[in-house]
Amino acid sequence: MDRGKCDRKKNSNVDIVAVLETQIDDLSPQVFGYLFDLLLDVGALDVFTQSAMMKKSRPGVLLTVICQVDKIEACEEIIFRETTTLGIRQSIQKRSILDREVKIVDTQYGKIRVKIATQGKGENTTIINVHPEYEDCIAIARQFNQPLTTIQKIVLDAFFID
Amino acid sequence: MDRGKCDRKKNSNVDIVAVLETQIDDLSPQVFGYLFDLLLDVGALDVFTQSAMMKKSRPGVLLTVICQVDKIEACEEIIFRETTTLGIRQSIQKRSILDREVKIVDTQYGKIRVKIATQGKGENTTIINVHPEYEDCIAIARQFNQPLTTIQKIVLDAFFID
Amino acid sequence: MDRGKCDRKKNSNVDIVAVLETQIDDLSPQVFGYLFDLLLDVGALDVFTQSAMMKKSRPGVLLTVICQVDKIEACEEIIFRETTTLGIRQSIQKRSILDREVKIVDTQYGKIRVKIATQGKGENTTIINVHPEYEDCIAIARQFNQPLTTIQKIVLDAFFID
Amino acid sequence: MDRGKCDRKKNSNVDIVAVLETQIDDLSPQVFGYLFDLLLDVGALDVFTQSAMMKKSRPGVLLTVICQVDKIEACEEIIFRETTTLGIRQSIQKRSILDREVKIVDTQYGKIRVKIATQGKGENTTIINVHPEYEDCIAIARQFNQPLTTIQKIVLDAFFID
Amino acid sequence: MDRGKCDRKKNSNVDIVAVLETQIDDLSPQVFGYLFDLLLDVGALDVFTQSAMMKKSRPGVLLTVICQVDKIEACEEIIFRETTTLGIRQSIQKRSILDREVKIVDTQYGKIRVKIATQGKGENTTIINVHPEYEDCIAIARQFNQPLTTIQKIVLDAFFID
Amino acid sequence: MDRGKCDRKKNSNVDIVAVLETQIDDLSPQVFGYLFDLLLDVGALDVFTQSAMMKKSRPGVLLTVICQVDKIEACEEIIFRETTTLGIRQSIQKRSILDREVKIVDTQYGKIRVKIATQGKGENTTIINVHPEYEDCIAIARQFNQPLTTIQKIVLDAFFID
Repeated sequence: MDRGKCDRKKNSNVDIVAVLETQIDDLSPQVFGYLFDLLLDVGALDVFTQSAMMKKSRPGVLLTVICQVDKIEACEEIIFRETTTLGIRQSIQKRSILDREVKIVDTQYGKIRVKIATQGKGENTTIINVHPEYEDCIAIARQFNQPLTTIQKIVLDAFFID
Repeated sequence: MDRGKCDRKKNSNVDIVAVLETQIDDLSPQVFGYLFDLLLDVGALDVFTQSAMMKKSRPGVLLTVICQVDKIEACEEIIFRETTTLGIRQSIQKRSILDREVKIVDTQYGKIRVKIATQGKGENTTIINVHPEYEDCIAIARQFNQPLTTIQKIVLDAFFID
Repeated sequence: MDRGKCDRKKNSNVDIVAVLETQIDDLSPQVFGYLFDLLLDVGALDVFTQSAMMKKSRPGVLLTVICQVDKIEACEEIIFRETTTLGIRQSIQKRSILDREVKIVDTQYGKIRVKIATQGKGENTTIINVHPEYEDCIAIARQFNQPLTTIQKIVLDAFFID
Repeated sequence: MDRGKCDRKKNSNVDIVAVLETQIDDLSPQVFGYLFDLLLDVGALDVFTQSAMMKKSRPGVLLTVICQVDKIEACEEIIFRETTTLGIRQSIQKRSILDREVKIVDTQYGKIRVKIATQGKGENTTIINVHPEYEDCIAIARQFNQPLTTIQKIVLDAFFID
Repeated sequence: MDRGKCDRKKNSNVDIVAVLETQIDDLSPQVFGYLFDLLLDVGALDVFTQSAMMKKSRPGVLLTVICQVDKIEACEEIIFRETTTLGIRQSIQKRSILDREVKIVDTQYGKIRVKIATQGKGENTTIINVHPEYEDCIAIARQFNQPLTTIQKIVLDAFFID
Repeated sequence: MDRGKCDRKKNSNVDIVAVLETQIDDLSPQVFGYLFDLLLDVGALDVFTQSAMMKKSRPGVLLTVICQVDKIEACEEIIFRETTTLGIRQSIQKRSILDREVKIVDTQYGKIRVKIATQGKGENTTIINVHPEYEDCIAIARQFNQPLTTIQKIVLDAFFID
């Protein structure tokens, strides 16, 4: 695993994303899990909440949605529809990204996908990160009654031996 | 309550707001309640804090102020004056907003304001949210010794029966 | 201000408090400010919330109430009445406390209370902390249009000059 | 809905629960979702995490598990197995609880369960809270393309009309 | 790495720890990093803070110290001395712990300590976790200009090959 | 200390900073302390983390780096290298700043630096904040076995007497 030595300056990839934000202080927390699913279904790249201390001692929630610019409208429609917010702020941001590739790794427990993040092209490609696919790992962990972290380590070992 | 069916594309309202942010790690938390009041008095639209983990294991505070662009200077003056911050970041953001209207609802406990959020114009107006006014509800809840959520439900029921 | 040199071992005061806790994930944050007031009115010593990440991606709230043991019932009644919780945990804890005394300090802006925390008795009394009274200070800060921290410093200076 | 008027003193129910806690600062956050499922499968009553600022500027996690006393061992085994913790603290706490009952409510969209929390016995039973079942509501919300909060309100209205 | 198969029931170790807690809402966050060092110097087992939303919209801090029972007094003295708190709650808790052992692992970058957590005795000893020593790893990472996670993986690989 | 009376409109200083943000949900919290050091070494102006509730009940971390625009690349390289993130968002923000100056103050315990924040020029300069240098104060506090807050107060008193 030869990391950290590539000349990143030549290899940077950039895209543009929208960041939607709204603070919410009068909605049951129950709604957010469902809201996450709806937003991801409609194509949001990522969704998260943070706790925020609002006026009048309210333990509010700051909702953040990262999406492609052409998904702003669909995401905003869901947020207005499912929450009590009266306003959604948006900013358009540049994003530096790594290339990603999915490979299949053979392990003693069966085939598991890994997501590989790389920088550079052709011979100069450098592996930056290797993520065993979470859903595959927990399926295996459950089936064979092994700790999740054990499965993840086995996948990484199998990947780097190849 | 016919929600979620309007054609939002034709009805979106947009305004521009300023977002002021500063992280603070050397000020007593006591100051923030007072700071919220000063900022709202001077016209801030919303104010909130979030906890942030700063360098040197400091449990700092990220302060966010949402205000109209012409209030930036007044808000910054208060922040510099009342806190220890040395710098305040600002970004100008587009904001999608719902139309808002205040109505009075008659209940068994007296008149209570509700804030109604809508999309669309004229015949195509759709109610998106109905918020019983918090200050009115807690006044009634205290006076009649009833749970706040009971009062809020009574207001909503009265609103939708009308 | 001679702090940190007393023999604390001889001077420790201890009392017993109840700690009530409940995690809530299906209630509007709006309720908590009102709940704080009700609980403090009925005699709670302190009340606070913390954000908690509940199952199903819900940004829940952990409510903690510190009260004397004879206030448990009154506090629990309010919590059941105003929130959606189905269960409130309680633990009885020993608490080491400082002696507290309130004094009036004369400043250029008028009289302001300070809360003084001490350890030890008689000649061996040591001042551990001096807190200018928050409500007094913000009243003065507003009246004379001075920063709150300036007022607090003036009070402390006046206290230690006496 | 006649809430808040029962004589709660005569009606309090109490049980005993174990609270397991451990702070974790060297484990991928990815593991916690899976851990929640395993702990709930084995019979934990509730599971949540809170962020904690650990030494050396680490954004750690405080894990809390509420369970019956006879589930302590099973829960601890899972926590040791799946996480990196070296120690799990436990305390045994008294818990005041409401009685709970599940009823089926008929709505225009079909049958939905509600969880009813009560205090008192027989004629003196008072309804304290009514929770439409989350999983039922989101199934209906998805099927009929309605906001979750709309479905929840329809269920509550149908319940109180009965 | 044979984890998760031992009979933990026979092997559990238990000790007793004190948990000291105090919420603080009128102290600069700057103090906490220094406070952590003082508490760990005097023998605290672990120290962490959590953000708490106090009354009057104050973003307070909940400080938790885990220590042996004979260190309560020393820890309390430091907390009273360095912070503004007026009271420190304490509870005595049972703690299930793993056995720990430190070994030295030889890697291509030199010797690095690993902390090994085990359950069981003699032939029945099972390794539950292996932690490369953080301070050793960052020293190596800095010296050889390698990512910290790379060094940690190399240490784990070397450990399991042995 | 004449604060709050200057005409700030004439005196505002503004610079431009980059804000880098990335949410991380599959990395050990252990890495962040080291990451902070690396980012500050390479010239970041400030670094902090916030807890974020990610999808699948993951207690993730939002990392924020404030830096000059010419440090974006160096900071991004470190973040990609040391963390598991696949994308780093950036926004360029205007920042209102105070002028800063460092002075040496003589105290009974020796010389201590203070950082003075001012607005205005020449005769119209107003002191907005005075911060005793944290590292100097803890060195003195340790050496003379005095509370940190006592040392900070002594420094401020000495500064304002001059």
